[in-house]
Amino acid sequence: MARQARAVRTRRAVLEAAAKVFAEYGYSAATVSDILKVAGVTKGALYFHFDSKEALARGVIESQVEQHLPAQELKIQEWVDQGMLLAYQLPRDPVVHAGAVLSSDPLGREHYGSAWPILIERSTQTLALAKERGEILPHVAPRETAEFITSAFHGVQLFSQLESGLADVERRVTVLYEHVLPTIALPAVLARLDVAADRGARLYAQMEAVTEAEYAERPTPVGTAD
Amino acid sequence: MARQARAVRTRRAVLEAAAKVFAEYGYSAATVSDILKVAGVTKGALYFHFDSKEALARGVIESQVEQHLPAQELKIQEWVDQGMLLAYQLPRDPVVHAGAVLSSDPLGREHYGSAWPILIERSTQTLALAKERGEILPHVAPRETAEFITSAFHGVQLFSQLESGLADVERRVTVLYEHVLPTIALPAVLARLDVAADRGARLYAQMEAVTEAEYAERPTPVGTAD
Repeated sequence: MARQARAVRTRRAVLEAAAKVFAEYGYSAATVSDILKVAGVTKGALYFHFDSKEALARGVIESQVEQHLPAQELKIQEWVDQGMLLAYQLPRDPVVHAGAVLSSDPLGREHYGSAWPILIERSTQTLALAKERGEILPHVAPRETAEFITSAFHGVQLFSQLESGLADVERRVTVLYEHVLPTIALPAVLARLDVAADRGARLYAQMEAVTEAEYAERPTPVGTAD
Repeated sequence: MARQARAVRTRRAVLEAAAKVFAEYGYSAATVSDILKVAGVTKGALYFHFDSKEALARGVIESQVEQHLPAQELKIQEWVDQGMLLAYQLPRDPVVHAGAVLSSDPLGREHYGSAWPILIERSTQTLALAKERGEILPHVAPRETAEFITSAFHGVQLFSQLESGLADVERRVTVLYEHVLPTIALPAVLARLDVAADRGARLYAQMEAVTEAEYAERPTPVGTAD
């Protein structure tokens, strides 16, 4: 366990360093050496997790999609939660923020990819389940709506970045959902959805509490308590 | 008239050259000399219209907002038309496209500004008029909706740029309006709105026809028919 926990911490330190360096120099000008210096880990440790600059960029990008959201009674609430959690993370988690920037870079994407295809696929699947359960209107085409919400979300977060340095991104994402949910969800379902601007914060706190409880249940092996 | 027509042509040639150079080298690396070479006009002619690189960027940006759209019976149709025309122009007019790119550049905007504040102001005013006339739902807050649609539009066009080089931008903008108009317009008004993907093309053709008719009405002065 301790070794695994250390590996998780190292990986996280490397990703935070990569996020910082990519944000400061841009992807093209950044080097693995720069990232190594900022991360404060050994070269071997870095290369164990990421064997190239492209791999580092992919690691940063994937931070946006590593959401383990709590299940909800309504699938369409889970769909909303994907965006609300991301809106909460963007101004607070430099790795998630760097991932969003890298994902929309037209030149960089050719080298390292983008989170968008994964986000769109997840969004499509959640909408398809919501449709099967009769939560959303029959005319909704899951993939079309998923592509639309992913691109509109990107525009909203970019606008918030330029206007307020992301200070108002959660409120703006609420406005986004308020503008589109009535066209997607059944009226009776709509009344039960939570799209409040602090939805992401509450989800995050709930997820943190679960993680802590999980760790607390595991006995720490003797002599490896770092 | 001929002198004015020549000035319009020169200004347009300079803006097209600036759009091309900004797209190729990026704003920071581009120089007025590069733009001068591509434009094929005299230095004096260029500086008559634009006295700096910032002024050239502002000129490119303003191309997005120089819309003289035909008046419609419904103000909310005029609101939609602002986006539909822009969607038509983006893949066809390199100056409009360069303006959109410059407007969303976080670093560049500090030097030369952005079209977004102007687009948002226009959008707000049109929504306020639509509200006065009772075309839109009473809960709509014009500025909030204007900021939302401008940022969502940007995300949609960026996604289209990355996915298809803007080949599908008009369809995606239709999808955007289909997702938000039911939350904005009264149901009876909604049924009368035109958000078809070729709306922008039809508006453009109509505007061209008006311009040609205006020119045709003016007699050409003898000996200055260039």
